[in-house]
Amino acid sequence: MSSTPAHPDDHRFVLTLGCPDRPGIIARITTFIAEFGGSIVEAGYHSDADSGWFFTRQAIKASTVPFSLGELRARFTAVAAELGPETEWQLLDSGARRRAVLLVSKEGHCLHDLLGRAGSGELPASVEAVIGNHPDLAEVAQAHGVKFHHVPFPKDPAERGPAFEQMRALVDAHAPDAVVLARFMQVLPPELCAHWAGRTINIHHSFLPSFVGARPYHQAFARGVKLIGATCHYVTAELDAGPIIEQDVIRIDHSDDVRDMVRQGRDIERVVLARGLRWHLEGRVLVHGRRTVVFD
Amino acid sequence: MSSTPAHPDDHRFVLTLGCPDRPGIIARITTFIAEFGGSIVEAGYHSDADSGWFFTRQAIKASTVPFSLGELRARFTAVAAELGPETEWQLLDSGARRRAVLLVSKEGHCLHDLLGRAGSGELPASVEAVIGNHPDLAEVAQAHGVKFHHVPFPKDPAERGPAFEQMRALVDAHAPDAVVLARFMQVLPPELCAHWAGRTINIHHSFLPSFVGARPYHQAFARGVKLIGATCHYVTAELDAGPIIEQDVIRIDHSDDVRDMVRQGRDIERVVLARGLRWHLEGRVLVHGRRTVVFD
Amino acid sequence: MSSTPAHPDDHRFVLTLGCPDRPGIIARITTFIAEFGGSIVEAGYHSDADSGWFFTRQAIKASTVPFSLGELRARFTAVAAELGPETEWQLLDSGARRRAVLLVSKEGHCLHDLLGRAGSGELPASVEAVIGNHPDLAEVAQAHGVKFHHVPFPKDPAERGPAFEQMRALVDAHAPDAVVLARFMQVLPPELCAHWAGRTINIHHSFLPSFVGARPYHQAFARGVKLIGATCHYVTAELDAGPIIEQDVIRIDHSDDVRDMVRQGRDIERVVLARGLRWHLEGRVLVHGRRTVVFD
Amino acid sequence: MSSTPAHPDDHRFVLTLGCPDRPGIIARITTFIAEFGGSIVEAGYHSDADSGWFFTRQAIKASTVPFSLGELRARFTAVAAELGPETEWQLLDSGARRRAVLLVSKEGHCLHDLLGRAGSGELPASVEAVIGNHPDLAEVAQAHGVKFHHVPFPKDPAERGPAFEQMRALVDAHAPDAVVLARFMQVLPPELCAHWAGRTINIHHSFLPSFVGARPYHQAFARGVKLIGATCHYVTAELDAGPIIEQDVIRIDHSDDVRDMVRQGRDIERVVLARGLRWHLEGRVLVHGRRTVVFD
Repeated sequence: MSSTPAHPDDHRFVLTLGCPDRPGIIARITTFIAEFGGSIVEAGYHSDADSGWFFTRQAIKASTVPFSLGELRARFTAVAAELGPETEWQLLDSGARRRAVLLVSKEGHCLHDLLGRAGSGELPASVEAVIGNHPDLAEVAQAHGVKFHHVPFPKDPAERGPAFEQMRALVDAHAPDAVVLARFMQVLPPELCAHWAGRTINIHHSFLPSFVGARPYHQAFARGVKLIGATCHYVTAELDAGPIIEQDVIRIDHSDDVRDMVRQGRDIERVVLARGLRWHLEGRVLVHGRRTVVFD
Repeated sequence: MSSTPAHPDDHRFVLTLGCPDRPGIIARITTFIAEFGGSIVEAGYHSDADSGWFFTRQAIKASTVPFSLGELRARFTAVAAELGPETEWQLLDSGARRRAVLLVSKEGHCLHDLLGRAGSGELPASVEAVIGNHPDLAEVAQAHGVKFHHVPFPKDPAERGPAFEQMRALVDAHAPDAVVLARFMQVLPPELCAHWAGRTINIHHSFLPSFVGARPYHQAFARGVKLIGATCHYVTAELDAGPIIEQDVIRIDHSDDVRDMVRQGRDIERVVLARGLRWHLEGRVLVHGRRTVVFD
Repeated sequence: MSSTPAHPDDHRFVLTLGCPDRPGIIARITTFIAEFGGSIVEAGYHSDADSGWFFTRQAIKASTVPFSLGELRARFTAVAAELGPETEWQLLDSGARRRAVLLVSKEGHCLHDLLGRAGSGELPASVEAVIGNHPDLAEVAQAHGVKFHHVPFPKDPAERGPAFEQMRALVDAHAPDAVVLARFMQVLPPELCAHWAGRTINIHHSFLPSFVGARPYHQAFARGVKLIGATCHYVTAELDAGPIIEQDVIRIDHSDDVRDMVRQGRDIERVVLARGLRWHLEGRVLVHGRRTVVFD
Repeated sequence: MSSTPAHPDDHRFVLTLGCPDRPGIIARITTFIAEFGGSIVEAGYHSDADSGWFFTRQAIKASTVPFSLGELRARFTAVAAELGPETEWQLLDSGARRRAVLLVSKEGHCLHDLLGRAGSGELPASVEAVIGNHPDLAEVAQAHGVKFHHVPFPKDPAERGPAFEQMRALVDAHAPDAVVLARFMQVLPPELCAHWAGRTINIHHSFLPSFVGARPYHQAFARGVKLIGATCHYVTAELDAGPIIEQDVIRIDHSDDVRDMVRQGRDIERVVLARGLRWHLEGRVLVHGRRTVVFD
């Protein structure tokens, strides 16, 4: 499954950058772009007073760049150096195919939704493979022409090392830009969190930090909350505590039992995951500590 | 400050009842009402499968009741007895003046809002008194013709017993239907929680159970959430853990610092508290364990 | 594609009724149910002061009804007669298979979503057929095992009579409980609106009554609104003016062009249509004039 | 009533600018700012592909500007000239007192709310006067120490010319930055719309363009919508058709009659008006044709 840009005009080189804040950064970067006649079609800036950090994302129309992306990267390296040794940046090509691998279990609504969006070109990625610890969703993947791998998990969590090892190999074979836990329902071991750091995305079915861990809808019912939520976040070694990319909520009332919450929650899980994943793939999410800057 | 019903037709006797669920309860209650020709203008029912409890609220047009509220209560007592010894019920007169006492500190936005709503008749209560542990909001109360009491609090929490004692006396003098912590910012001692049980309402400036305790907006900023919330709940001895009446959220993003959150949060605090308090005063909130049934 | 109730306990007989309001209706109906020991698991009542009409929906646990649905209908007929000649009512069996036929054009997101929900049992209906005026979505339907019919439309609207006639025959062959215009993009002729009255459901991609007719996102962009919406409504002969079942909105800003609106709008179109269709199929929607009562 | 900046650090010079889009604009402006060492604490950019127009708002920390605002304006004039003759720009001083005059009728909730926000410093303006065509809200204004003028309106709309003339004189005496129709309920004559163009702000109690004109809640009830809204917009000669600054909605259902809508609608009217007015006063709203760019 591949996605193609709808219009040639949509082809962009996207610069994202974070560095310690000081006057003149925007001028330096935009002057660099103006000097070769680059047309900025989207620009986001954020200066975080709390951390003293500066963040930007600049989408440059590719047709206005008179040299290759490699050359653009080489030239910008000198600019970034002026901004100090802590500067972190990258330059993405919106025309390059981005790759996602999806990890699933038994619940198919997020898988279904992401495959539909990838198929219609709405999600700017090709889904390279789906890996499940149960075989239930094999047909859904195959109906969309995507390879499904079943990696059975032993009941005893202590014996799951080889299964995770196999999963790692299957994922790494695709060198994905995003590893998506699409209701995967398993806690990744710390070494996998570290190995895929910055590109592993989870959808948690609560409004974090409320209801960390298992069965959040049951927790929400017991607590009697009036809204339920979903949270899309980067996966880190600390359970459900990684940087949050996106959240949303939906109103419930006393007449909704846990099954009603599960049903209604699916509608926000789908949307929140799809939104967060798209932003990640388009280079809209910059992470600083435990917080994210999202240029949506 | 008093509130009067806008239309005589709005005068209602409101029955609220909770009892163990079994077939025939609705028929028994509505037949009782039909027998004297009572017109039910609003009816709410809820059968909670989880706890096996039944809840109802019936608003009867007062002009269709051919006897006094006292007589109605006396007659219904026999019906309630049929529904079992655990049955809890009350009959409210929507035409009777309901009384609220507001506890405040320095932040005036909720006080301001509630006094405005009480003055326009939107909040079905008269505000009998405002009590502050700081004198700052005395003028606001007085501008609305409401008596303000300043009860200074010693710095050392261990020495606040007498201040709370004084507050208790001031509140109890009005026999209020609602004791409202309108950004009071102090933890009530357990004995006051018990003494005012079921009629003490707090507004907490987070989406509980996230960010219990002090400085929730600072906690929300540090965690990097994408929505902030407000929660109106009954006060119990366990901090910020009483039954939730109402919640709402508002979207923020990375450009909002703590001060922005404080400003935007006020808009939902006001609305969530006003909504929860109105529902409480109109007998729309039935509590069962840690959960509420709200017939809004 | 069929859907089966998740639990035998979920099997219900659902009574919906509308009649002129007067005291005693609830008592009459619930006494009827109590007399045979029926257990009401969900009850909705609404008395509309404006029109003087009374509406109710009662879900009775099927296992507590000691006779057949036919017998229940026969017995209730006498009760309904007491409520006056204008009374309209029906009794649905939640265990009976309900049938839907979907009309589509080229855009697949709603089709995709509904087939996914039907397949997982979330939507209480089997999708009997998909009919498109373009062949584009044939594969999507077939991947879910649903028959697809292509009915080509002549360019000249004046010559579409035979195509609509063919469509009518294809739909009627399934005697569907719902005819769903899942982004069908064609205006039904008045005689089809009449023929399928009360069971034809459309999703319009605006917050009606704003932006009736074609290209509502373009209209919304030109007007500079700050929220875009979707509306699920019954189809009547007057364009986009039938009774509204459900609506929702999503926030946009100046940086969203029409293509962004189209993309974001899909997320609410899907959800609003799925919600409205489920309510229709579960007998939760009662129509009175141009307004609906929705017991959700 | 005056408002003072909470922190000296909050003192800013705010540049807003619109001009035909072309590469290099951002570089030109930010280089200008960097050359004198100005620190940009908030930056918004928007390039509108549809109209080919570029918009920006730059908030510069005043303490980093080594000369006066007059000097800054003089220097920037040369930069603006380089961007072409169509360029429109202004430089605001966030430390200067901004003035608002409020026009009201009988309903006080928006007046109440705005006076509360102005008093607490949340709204960056002093309210110079309140003018009502009815005397009802005189006390509310006076309780906040604001002068109230009663300008009675003749019943016959054709005879209101002198009243509007008197109102114009009263308003113009304060040279306000904002003329706020806080539920004023009267249509301004075209010459006043023109006279106060770009600074007259209305709150309309519907989700425009739905329900233009009188009694929008009655229209909404009749149409059976499932959400009601409020719209803050600039006033132009065409009724309820000026550029929209902000909108929001709230969910209702069949049990809400017009009076319920009026009550619930007030909560969004207040918030939407306060938000829109604050954005206007802080120079966050740039108008282009019938659309607004809001850098919130």
